[in-house]
Parts: sequence; structure tokens; C-alpha cells
Amino acid sequence: MPEPTHSSDQRAIGTVAMRWHDSSLELLDQRLLPTEEHWITLEGASGVAQCIRDMVVRGAPAIGISAAYGVALAARHAGAGEWKAEIRHAISELAASRPTAVNLFWALQIMEKEFHGCQTLDEAITRLAAKAVQIHREDLSANLAMADYALEFMAADTPFSVLTHCNTGALATGGYGTALGVIRRLHEKQLLKQVYADETRPWLQGSRLTAWELARDGIPVTLNADGAAAAILARGEVKWIVVGADRITANGDVANKIGTYSLAVLARYHRVGFMVVAPSSTVDMSLASGKDIPIEEREGTEVRQIKGIPIAPDSVDVFNPVFDVTPASLIDAIVTERGVVHNPDITGMRVLFG
Amino acid sequence: MPEPTHSSDQRAIGTVAMRWHDSSLELLDQRLLPTEEHWITLEGASGVAQCIRDMVVRGAPAIGISAAYGVALAARHAGAGEWKAEIRHAISELAASRPTAVNLFWALQIMEKEFHGCQTLDEAITRLAAKAVQIHREDLSANLAMADYALEFMAADTPFSVLTHCNTGALATGGYGTALGVIRRLHEKQLLKQVYADETRPWLQGSRLTAWELARDGIPVTLNADGAAAAILARGEVKWIVVGADRITANGDVANKIGTYSLAVLARYHRVGFMVVAPSSTVDMSLASGKDIPIEEREGTEVRQIKGIPIAPDSVDVFNPVFDVTPASLIDAIVTERGVVHNPDITGMRVLFG
Repeated sequence: MPEPTHSSDQRAIGTVAMRWHDSSLELLDQRLLPTEEHWITLEGASGVAQCIRDMVVRGAPAIGISAAYGVALAARHAGAGEWKAEIRHAISELAASRPTAVNLFWALQIMEKEFHGCQTLDEAITRLAAKAVQIHREDLSANLAMADYALEFMAADTPFSVLTHCNTGALATGGYGTALGVIRRLHEKQLLKQVYADETRPWLQGSRLTAWELARDGIPVTLNADGAAAAILARGEVKWIVVGADRITANGDVANKIGTYSLAVLARYHRVGFMVVAPSSTVDMSLASGKDIPIEEREGTEVRQIKGIPIAPDSVDVFNPVFDVTPASLIDAIVTERGVVHNPDITGMRVLFG
Repeated sequence: MPEPTHSSDQRAIGTVAMRWHDSSLELLDQRLLPTEEHWITLEGASGVAQCIRDMVVRGAPAIGISAAYGVALAARHAGAGEWKAEIRHAISELAASRPTAVNLFWALQIMEKEFHGCQTLDEAITRLAAKAVQIHREDLSANLAMADYALEFMAADTPFSVLTHCNTGALATGGYGTALGVIRRLHEKQLLKQVYADETRPWLQGSRLTAWELARDGIPVTLNADGAAAAILARGEVKWIVVGADRITANGDVANKIGTYSLAVLARYHRVGFMVVAPSSTVDMSLASGKDIPIEEREGTEVRQIKGIPIAPDSVDVFNPVFDVTPASLIDAIVTERGVVHNPDITGMRVLFG
């Protein structure tokens, strides 16, 4: 999927998070944004797994795509004798990098299946690289399709404001974005007044990534502390809250960045629409409900410090879940590239994902 | 009010925010906590006004008390000829320091009335200092009384957890605290399981001040990003959200730190109690409802940077209101030193403040 990086539609799909070069993968170090644009070059799966774990790359779809490229790299650099064991090891190492986003396991399953069909290392090198590129390309296509479905569902004819959380843009996906793709499309169609971007503590994906990405692409954005979202909704200008997802269960419950559930409750209270935008690779029909989703908790230092600077007592206990679960009952629409599930429940989910 | 600073009940009332020495006022620079404990010595009202504006001292009651001491300092250091004009100027300078918390104007009104009764500068020096100390002392007494009322209202017999926002402790008041005073009392009575403290972006009063204050006083505290509050409530362990207030209007609407309104909506959704604890000096019966409260907006740099470190693009627009308004309909109880207003409305407010 190197084309968009070099082609004229880069602006249209946003700043990419990764560049594939057949024998190496470059990842934009998202931890250093917005102050520094630094690319990390990886030649093996271990490095990719480490980058996923350390959040060099983040966003459920981007994690899945990176992991697929990681498997391709494992083949490319495998020893002639041990190549099967090495690829198998790479897949399990990548699978252990982060627990919540299901796109990671989905992408690795596709890569594993492709790997099982390979008779020789040469074949594996070619086929695994091609499959990873395909996963990347299809993610971008899915984002473009979701934007179409979302706008059709919103059926707006006058500009309005939206509020979003975390980063679901080109940086979080194969390009264009999920929720931010919908926002991009609203802007293209002159239906967007203003994007309010939650800064999204503790990792500040909103201020560091979303504000940076939108400003760069000329989309009007106003940044706010997460706690200010309710005051913004009370002003009545926001018509939709649009967010991404890390895992969607069979009943339509959604795991997404911590703070999403709060927004869903606020949306219902203020009679604002609440839309989840995610590719079908995010849907996990094997889990009955959100209760079954493993929720990653990360180190307390992410809350106690910012960029190494202490902002709380060293030893204070911290509750730092990375995701929360929004019950389907608070969601107006789940938008995927297969279509829209309106007022999601198990029946509606089965129609598209059964 | 120097006694508690030196006496054995300091631990009981918490770490003080200010020390009065007749000809000077010392303020703990709360911007540097928790990493540094630095006291600023002030000999004039201008310096006190600047410290209020710059948030060296913050918290509605502490702002009111500091302003009262500022007026006393103006008298103490006034020239024999111009003393009346100087004190009058000091009062107006202090009144312009911050717009939202009504305790500031309340304290200045009391000081102004006292000033009008003074015939000589010597009399003003003595009476204004005595009045400021009285305001300080009565605030502490009010906090102790509110804790009694709150516990009686909660009528708990087994320990439970509470969630709080911002800092309403000894640092924000004349000692002990408002909402944090209630939490202190729950701890004293062994009715407190755990305090969840919202970090309270953008100014991080929760992580920098509340976590520090509670840890110092041996009260079990867990820090969380503001966006994690909903996930905490969903676990069912929190029985009450307890917060302070910066202004309460005649109908029971409450202006408090940005993020409070969000918690009130979440509390109602999760059937968790929502209690506001504030001295009667926070009540402003001259305003019909929260719509009439002037809401301070501060500079975008408070959101774009943390301790001078950029965390968002330099030029991005920011919406940075310091307070929000929680409608009375979402509040279960307003606790003051005059008693409790249950399910506040204009009738209930008039019974205590009519």
C-alpha cells in the first residue's frame, strides 16, 4: 500500500501512519507528535510488536495492519531452515502485544491462514507481503465506504458541529479514518461547522493527534478538556458524537477509548446522536456482550506523569483502564463498510455479521 | 487564624493554604504542588490579587479568605493620608481578580462594611485584620459543621467509596475542606472505603492537590483520568459523588469546576448520589439560575501545554471554560453549614437562604 504515501491523494486520505517497503516497515512515532515527526524503520516482527505495545502505532485498524506487515517482515527476513517456526513465533509475539482491539487478532488470523497455504519460503515472502498490502488497502476502502453510509444515515442538509474522542483518523487506520473519515467527508460536503476534539487523557490522542491531523488537513477543530464535553453539548450546537471502536460484540456493545462511555451517557441526556464507526474487522461475534471483552489496564505513570514530568504524587494509586464499554442501548448507529446497524442489538448485528 | 498552622490539630484539618502574620500573608504556591512546597509572602493587596488571578491560591472559600486578608494588608501598609483611597482601591483590585466564585465578592463586601465603620487608620488596621481572621475561622467552622450534616444525610452504616472532582480540601478552604471535609469525616468514622479522585484537567487539581492532600493525611485515594469516571461508576462501588461549588443560585443550580456537570449526569444515569458541599458564602440568591453566572474562560495554553511542554499544535483553537453549571434537578443534596437542601429548588433554597 505504498501508493497513497506518494500520490496526489495523500491530502484526501490524511497523513499516513505507516509506509511499507517490502523488506521494511516504517512507522510514524505517534508518541512524539505533534512536536516531532519521526519515523521508525522496522525489519522484524519483534520490533513491530514492541511498537504496538509501546503505542508508537495505535488505533485498532492501524494495529491490525501493522501486525500484518510484521508477519510479512518475519517471512522476508526468515532463515531458510527455520522459516515456518519463525513466522509462527512472529504471529504469537504480535498477538501478545495488546489485548483489547480485536482487529489485531483478526489480521493475524488472515495472515496465519495465508501462511498455512505456503509451501516454500519464497512463496511465503510474496504471499504474506501481498496479503498485508491487501489488508491495508481494504481498510482504506472500508473507511471510504463507511463515510458514505454515515452521511446517508445522518441525512443532514445544513452544517452542524460534531464532537469526537481519541484519534480515529488516517493515523489510526490505513488512511482517511473511521470516525474522523466521517468528519472528513462532512467537511468535503460542506456539512461540517466545527469539530470539538476531546483531548483524551491520559494519552492525549485528541490534542496530540486529532488536533494535529485536522489542522493539517484544514478542517476546523476546537480542542477541549474531556471534562468540558458536557458543557459543549449543553450549548446545543453539536448534533452528533462520532467515535471509533476497538471491539464490538454480538449484541452491539462497544469497547473504545476510555471516556467513550461517558460521552454516550451525555449524548443520550442531551438528545445528541451517538455514532460508532468501525470496519467489520472490529466486530467480534464470538463474544456475547461487552462484559466479555478483556480491558487493558496500563501503568499508573501514564496518569502520574506527562512526558516524564510528575503531575501527581509518585506513589499514588492509579486506575488506568485504556478502554471502557458502551452498552448498545446508548448507541444510535454502528456504521461499518457492510452498512449501518441502527439501534444495535443482537438481531440487528446478526443481519450484517451473522 | 495562625493557630491551626502550629497546633496539634493541623493533621485533623489538613495542610493549610495560607498563614497570616498581621503584617504579611503567606500563600502556599499551589501551582508547584505536588513536587515543591513553596510559600509566597505578600505585604499588599495587589500581590494577593495577582496570586488569585494566577491561581497560586484557588478554591472558592480560600479565594474569599485570601481576599479578606488582602484588604487587611492594604490597611496595614497604607499611607496615613491616603489610607481610605488605598483600601478602596485594594477592594476593587481584588474584586477584579476572578469572576465566577461568589465567595470572593461576599468576603469583600464584609470587609468593605467593616472598613466603612472605621474612623481612623489605626482602627482600620485592627478591625480589618480581626475581621479577616474571623472570616477564616468561620469558614473552618462551617466545614466542620457541613461534614456533620452530610454524614447525617448519607446515613450510612457500612463503608462505601466516593468519587470527587477538583480539590475541595484544606488547600481550597480555611481548613478541613468542603467536599473533602465530608470525605475526611467519613474516613474518621471508618465509613470510607476508597476515594476516586478525578485528575481534573486542565489544571490537574485532582492529581496535583487532592491526591497529595489525601495521601498526606493517610486517606485511601485512587487517581483516575476524568474520562474514567463513568467506568468507575459502572462498577457499582461508588455510592456518592461529592463535590464543592463556586456559586449556587437561588434555584439551586451550581457552578463548579469544569467536569462537574458531566459527573452529575453520570451519577443520575448510574443511580449514584450527587452531593454539593459548600459554605453559605457560596450561595448567591441574587441570581435566579445558573444561566446568570459569569463563567470564566482561561487561556488555551492551559490545554495546549502542561508545565510549559507542548501537548497540542501551538495554534489550535481551544475551548477552556473553568467552570460549568449543574442544574439543580441533577443534585440530590446541597450541604451548607446552615443545613441540607434536599432535591434543591427555589423553595428549598429559600428555607435556608431566603
